[in-house]
Amino acid sequence: MDLNSDLGEGFGAWTLGDDEAMLDVVSSANVACGFHAGDPRSLLATCERAVERGVVIGAQVGYRDLAGFGRRFIDYETDDLVADLIYQLGALDGLARAAGDRVLYVKPHGALYNTIVHHEQQAAAVVDAVRRYDPDLPVLGLPGSVFLELAEDAGLRTVREAFADRGYHADGTLVPRRLPGALLHDPDEVAERMLRLVTEHTLVAVDGSVIKIEADSLCVHGDSPGAVAMARAVAEKLAASGVSINAFAGSGQ
Amino acid sequence: MDLNSDLGEGFGAWTLGDDEAMLDVVSSANVACGFHAGDPRSLLATCERAVERGVVIGAQVGYRDLAGFGRRFIDYETDDLVADLIYQLGALDGLARAAGDRVLYVKPHGALYNTIVHHEQQAAAVVDAVRRYDPDLPVLGLPGSVFLELAEDAGLRTVREAFADRGYHADGTLVPRRLPGALLHDPDEVAERMLRLVTEHTLVAVDGSVIKIEADSLCVHGDSPGAVAMARAVAEKLAASGVSINAFAGSGQ
Amino acid sequence: MDLNSDLGEGFGAWTLGDDEAMLDVVSSANVACGFHAGDPRSLLATCERAVERGVVIGAQVGYRDLAGFGRRFIDYETDDLVADLIYQLGALDGLARAAGDRVLYVKPHGALYNTIVHHEQQAAAVVDAVRRYDPDLPVLGLPGSVFLELAEDAGLRTVREAFADRGYHADGTLVPRRLPGALLHDPDEVAERMLRLVTEHTLVAVDGSVIKIEADSLCVHGDSPGAVAMARAVAEKLAASGVSINAFAGSGQ
Amino acid sequence: MDLNSDLGEGFGAWTLGDDEAMLDVVSSANVACGFHAGDPRSLLATCERAVERGVVIGAQVGYRDLAGFGRRFIDYETDDLVADLIYQLGALDGLARAAGDRVLYVKPHGALYNTIVHHEQQAAAVVDAVRRYDPDLPVLGLPGSVFLELAEDAGLRTVREAFADRGYHADGTLVPRRLPGALLHDPDEVAERMLRLVTEHTLVAVDGSVIKIEADSLCVHGDSPGAVAMARAVAEKLAASGVSINAFAGSGQ
Repeated sequence: MDLNSDLGEGFGAWTLGDDEAMLDVVSSANVACGFHAGDPRSLLATCERAVERGVVIGAQVGYRDLAGFGRRFIDYETDDLVADLIYQLGALDGLARAAGDRVLYVKPHGALYNTIVHHEQQAAAVVDAVRRYDPDLPVLGLPGSVFLELAEDAGLRTVREAFADRGYHADGTLVPRRLPGALLHDPDEVAERMLRLVTEHTLVAVDGSVIKIEADSLCVHGDSPGAVAMARAVAEKLAASGVSINAFAGSGQ
Repeated sequence: MDLNSDLGEGFGAWTLGDDEAMLDVVSSANVACGFHAGDPRSLLATCERAVERGVVIGAQVGYRDLAGFGRRFIDYETDDLVADLIYQLGALDGLARAAGDRVLYVKPHGALYNTIVHHEQQAAAVVDAVRRYDPDLPVLGLPGSVFLELAEDAGLRTVREAFADRGYHADGTLVPRRLPGALLHDPDEVAERMLRLVTEHTLVAVDGSVIKIEADSLCVHGDSPGAVAMARAVAEKLAASGVSINAFAGSGQ
Repeated sequence: MDLNSDLGEGFGAWTLGDDEAMLDVVSSANVACGFHAGDPRSLLATCERAVERGVVIGAQVGYRDLAGFGRRFIDYETDDLVADLIYQLGALDGLARAAGDRVLYVKPHGALYNTIVHHEQQAAAVVDAVRRYDPDLPVLGLPGSVFLELAEDAGLRTVREAFADRGYHADGTLVPRRLPGALLHDPDEVAERMLRLVTEHTLVAVDGSVIKIEADSLCVHGDSPGAVAMARAVAEKLAASGVSINAFAGSGQ
Repeated sequence: MDLNSDLGEGFGAWTLGDDEAMLDVVSSANVACGFHAGDPRSLLATCERAVERGVVIGAQVGYRDLAGFGRRFIDYETDDLVADLIYQLGALDGLARAAGDRVLYVKPHGALYNTIVHHEQQAAAVVDAVRRYDPDLPVLGLPGSVFLELAEDAGLRTVREAFADRGYHADGTLVPRRLPGALLHDPDEVAERMLRLVTEHTLVAVDGSVIKIEADSLCVHGDSPGAVAMARAVAEKLAASGVSINAFAGSGQ
């Protein structure tokens, strides 16, 4: 099973999360690309550290919105969105190559991620951008999203993602961040939950019902206070149960 | 002889220069990379048009300064400058690849260009960034600059540039933009001047002295009102005198 | 009748529209505030020229989106929008005061303008921002918009605006920019149309029906090629018919 | 004696320093203005908290350089710098007024602060901006700086500042941040040092010599890890010695 986390999300003098510690736990690093977060110097440093530890680098592309951290919907024209995404992919890939590796997958960030669960125009733009940049790059997304559907139709490799620290509705969508039950905080509970997800492909939704979730990668967020502890708990629980942590992408694949 | 021009220098709703017309004249396009100018959508469009016309795409990298159009010196730390440049190189290369070609050379922009004529730390940072991104990329610069010296020492291919519409001091440096004689406006005079430069390797400096300038590429600026007319005059004068316009870089080289 | 136009919409090296010429025609200048357009130096210059000509300065506040020129919807949180607007109001007011006058009204720009025709949360945020900054500032908006309704409820002075160069639907809303009939180009037709609007309070909608529009100010856009000619045609037609051009706001009011 | 600290220096999702705690200690808050740091929402919140606690609000104006946190020199043209500063002054003043108070002094930030110790053109630009915005605003600066000299000549009230946590050269200038001795870390030592400064007007420089420093305000930085503890130590030491902490500016002055 792959563990992924959002990294490189500082900007200049500002830091966010503990990239060093997280890179010791995860197999895939969703590295910011400068539009919602990430100045080039710290992105390069994050790429170098990922390469040192054998962690696979993915491009976490987002809206051009530093002030909003890419977390608010922007009603982009298609051509603008496609070009903004190719620009970000190329930029991070340049830094990753300078660090000795390259971008090996794509994960949309924040409001873009949530929007393309259902928004066809923007989902198609993301698919188009990835195809134009490199049609061999796998894309991470929510199972059942319009995005993964369109990506599959377009011949992209799709990777279904589950969120370790997020609550789910009974229909498999995430509980929005501001509603109760959106964020889980107890590392043991989260680890237990992820083990069940990996071994039985089920999760308990906020309404108590048991839902079926197929995931190829687990996201352990990098920006919450207990993020590293939670990621470690998940990694250790899986390892103790014989589930190895391996990137879904990589040179050897 | 190569003719180069600065292109892709609009931003969003704002345009600058007539890229379409200029691409019919020049052999090399110094395309902005988004830090001093250039939104991704118009950069992609400029790359696509360059590819259609067989014009070679170069990366015109600059300081992160949209408000100043990259024309004011910024006292960067080395690591920040190196990473900002790699980021820009990768970003434009991504767009160029999506357009069917790739970045084939590098030309620093504005205050960065002028600074690295003499500023060792920043010149070395530019050299380092190009080497880390792709050591096969040629770099354009002012003959005699610290930049071209360091680039040569580092094994980069260097391309010496002369400016068609700029006045020169007797020591071969450019007359700064705000001094009298800095900018030339008469297309015929400029064309004559460039023909002499190409065939005799000499120019008349502002003080009337004749100076020796070796150039591998002539820059015809893209952002002045009469830019296209001047570029055409130079191209036609050279062609009429049997000098063909060819990019210094390219797939066939 | 008041004539207003969007001014100060360049940024750094980029210019847009002919502010000088437009300031000779209009009575009210909607000056950009730096978030969708407008670097402080050119905003200050525009304010100084407005003061010289006795043109009233209004704050054209918008989304934080230089790349999109404030023309795409952003799903702001209320507190962010209120604070972004107060910041812009204060910033332009500071420049206007340095130029010898002050901001005397508020007009939302672009996507924000269109959004608050119907979007309650954002309309309320704009009203709240104006009230917190200065409850004596009048606000310009579309007649019948949620924005003007909420503004009135909050005790703000509201100014109903009609657009000289835009087509209208039969329900009084504007034809979106990309649909046929959205933009009018013939100065004489536009001038005739505005005279009828001012004297008879009617307009012909795109479907041919005659609609009733009450307006306290006419917007003649500053960023289209024939903008100045159109503004002049409207001003001259009104003047020739005995309608004087006067700002709705001002020191003497 | 006045205690001042840099506040409001986060941006969007990114925080820096503990504004809440610092506002319980200082008498004057140098609030960022959005160009080197500070999104409007958090700036407004900082202003509101300052007003609640009776802390005086000053405008900490800086270069337009979020990526560099205003800490790198930018070679501005005069007109650009003057307008950028007026814009920032107005913007923060707008937020301060919405919070129930107003900007009562000006303190340049980072590289601008250091530059105008000796750089006449930029020092004059800052003086000009303050005069044009409001000639009654006092300015904070380094004793002996070109800035304070020009400010005094221009009739501005000048406030001489000493830095609690910084080492000094024998000539009264600050030891640059990267040299040994630049930053002091021991709260007790710093407090003792500041008491001596306040009561005897002397400091021990890095070379061991005793220098004379006259200061009207002590800066306790807000962005270092032990900043709050150090500020508290200084405040308590001064209070215990009968020196009261009072803002140099304020409604009652």
